[in-house]
Amino acid sequence: MLNLERLERMRRSMQNERLDALVLRLPENVLLLSGFWPMIGATYLVFPLEGVPHAIVPHCYEMEAARSLWAGNVSHYKYGVLDAEPTHIAVAKSLAGIVQGKHWRRIGFEERFDVAAPSWNTAEFLAPSAQNRELLSSVFPSAEPVDVSTLIQVQRRTKTPYEMDKLRIASEISSIGLRSFDEIVKVGVSGVALAARVEHDIMALGTGQHGTFRVRAFAQVAVGPEETAVGYRPNEVSTTRRLADGEVALLELGVVVDGYWADRTRVRVAGNATDEQLRIFDTVRAAQEAAVIEMRPGVKAAQVDEAARSVIRAAGYEKHFPHITGHGLGFRYHESSPMLAPQSPEVLEEGMLTSVEPGIYKAPAGGFRIEDDVFVVKGGAEVLGPHPKHLV
Amino acid sequence: MLNLERLERMRRSMQNERLDALVLRLPENVLLLSGFWPMIGATYLVFPLEGVPHAIVPHCYEMEAARSLWAGNVSHYKYGVLDAEPTHIAVAKSLAGIVQGKHWRRIGFEERFDVAAPSWNTAEFLAPSAQNRELLSSVFPSAEPVDVSTLIQVQRRTKTPYEMDKLRIASEISSIGLRSFDEIVKVGVSGVALAARVEHDIMALGTGQHGTFRVRAFAQVAVGPEETAVGYRPNEVSTTRRLADGEVALLELGVVVDGYWADRTRVRVAGNATDEQLRIFDTVRAAQEAAVIEMRPGVKAAQVDEAARSVIRAAGYEKHFPHITGHGLGFRYHESSPMLAPQSPEVLEEGMLTSVEPGIYKAPAGGFRIEDDVFVVKGGAEVLGPHPKHLV
Repeated sequence: MLNLERLERMRRSMQNERLDALVLRLPENVLLLSGFWPMIGATYLVFPLEGVPHAIVPHCYEMEAARSLWAGNVSHYKYGVLDAEPTHIAVAKSLAGIVQGKHWRRIGFEERFDVAAPSWNTAEFLAPSAQNRELLSSVFPSAEPVDVSTLIQVQRRTKTPYEMDKLRIASEISSIGLRSFDEIVKVGVSGVALAARVEHDIMALGTGQHGTFRVRAFAQVAVGPEETAVGYRPNEVSTTRRLADGEVALLELGVVVDGYWADRTRVRVAGNATDEQLRIFDTVRAAQEAAVIEMRPGVKAAQVDEAARSVIRAAGYEKHFPHITGHGLGFRYHESSPMLAPQSPEVLEEGMLTSVEPGIYKAPAGGFRIEDDVFVVKGGAEVLGPHPKHLV
Repeated sequence: MLNLERLERMRRSMQNERLDALVLRLPENVLLLSGFWPMIGATYLVFPLEGVPHAIVPHCYEMEAARSLWAGNVSHYKYGVLDAEPTHIAVAKSLAGIVQGKHWRRIGFEERFDVAAPSWNTAEFLAPSAQNRELLSSVFPSAEPVDVSTLIQVQRRTKTPYEMDKLRIASEISSIGLRSFDEIVKVGVSGVALAARVEHDIMALGTGQHGTFRVRAFAQVAVGPEETAVGYRPNEVSTTRRLADGEVALLELGVVVDGYWADRTRVRVAGNATDEQLRIFDTVRAAQEAAVIEMRPGVKAAQVDEAARSVIRAAGYEKHFPHITGHGLGFRYHESSPMLAPQSPEVLEEGMLTSVEPGIYKAPAGGFRIEDDVFVVKGGAEVLGPHPKHLV
């Protein structure tokens, strides 16, 4: 099944910007326009306004690329072996062959990105830094290089039906980890033990579900008030601190499935919860529900944030909810748009995907956040990867 | 314990290059010169030729930074909360305060890096792209920005005693995963099950060993001849393919411990190995031993490669060993220098760390590689994280 809607939308944007072609290297953008989530960040995608796309792939990943590329041409270059040329030379030759006879004037590339999603190899990031621009200048000496980072980010804000299906699967697979967390969260377990088990189960049980191929989880579990009530942190650190009776464990979970992301959070108290913990948890859950009810095409993002925030305000915890209600995601763990935030100027559109993740952080009760990913669909919202929310 | 030798060596390099200060953002270089492996890639380090270093850290990671920063000053800026300014503005203000009254003419920064190690958050990479240069230009309008990517890479080639201790610990912790692999590799197990278990055990059992704080593993297990005999691939992909009797499983393993890396590989055959599998395995093991015996200060890197390669050649498998014998590592999974390769011009020096990883890939026997990390020490070599190598 091809994602023709995405290709057509991209071409319309390119026409508006008078772009003749894109030469992309960020794994998230190669995925967006080719279907292939690169193994390492050394795959290039030439995406012309007219004609078929062309992927340039390290030879050792020919098999993986063939399995997922939608269409178009593919070239391979030798990588990581004794008779390989330096990558920039091999790629420049390949590019030169592809563009021969083309008279492209404006070429889009990625220069101003602050955040990037990893390739399958998350242990190392092959970044398009200054050399990437030099490579393009050498192949296209008379073309004008145009940074398209923002253009593509805007493109990605609303997902196509094809992408929505992929993202539903990613979220469903992330629920495996929420189940494992529920099962083993108890007095005496440490944050690292919880995180390691959640990551294990998602990879071991999730890979292959619905025909998926590569699944990886990034779980972080903060334990007890001093770790959880620090406030919002984009990433927690799981430690050897063990969960004591009546303490909260907070699981922050990123999951990538063939390049598509899910972002979830759950909290559990081991043993008996205090009245305040129960009240805070119920408030957070009610805030999340209020936000989801508000979501539909045409509604302001700020209004969705206010729906959650007003529930927390009414319960007297407003100053303990220091962050936004949600962020875009899909091709990354976090995307910069849309933002469900008090000052957000954005309006929700069909196909947008955001996290909805209100939280209250207050010692000694602890930090409490609940997070699910939600699509804006015709007339309302679709919560992905449904999974029960219980504190104890 | 401070790593004063590193700071002094860096300052000598800076003097040679007439650099007044470095403003670094890559997590691997912040670690190198401050002791703090950033949680997310939003920490900046100002490292002046004269005076004390100054770290600029997101406020939510104050605790983690305080725990590991060696010395110097630290500023925090608000990040990820409603009242946070945009990062580039907050950091520019902080930088401006730090450099007030300084008359720096040449400022080193990172512009031409092809590969970068992740921060603790490996799910997202906050990259110093074009905006980083603009940030520096705004704070240092009259200074000359100098790309120091190569300078620092050369610095990192030889490790200090402090760093050697950290890297020994990383390798020791990686051995946890080799043990787990040995325990569960048997007929019927899949590549993803093996990889997930190895990653789980390293995080769950390794975190906290020797006072370590953050441990993460990246395991990839190829199974059977069609997955393992593809030849050398920088990263394998673990699949749901199950190991059959007499087939090989190849574990490629990267491990990061508080920012310091280990890189290991092991192979095992489930059930009975064929004569050819045993012969290939023994050849690879002998090649690795021959390379290690050759390693000492003053020896050419190419000579070490040849020591391994000649063993494989004598056994008749030369064309099935298509890659180099080893690569530098330490602050990354792979560093670009030194390279144990046929054409390498480098000479080994005390304190260098390389992988030693000969391999033979030949269907139907399968792919066989053994990899350990080895220090060049006075008069010889020190193999890290000793762990037995058995095929069955």
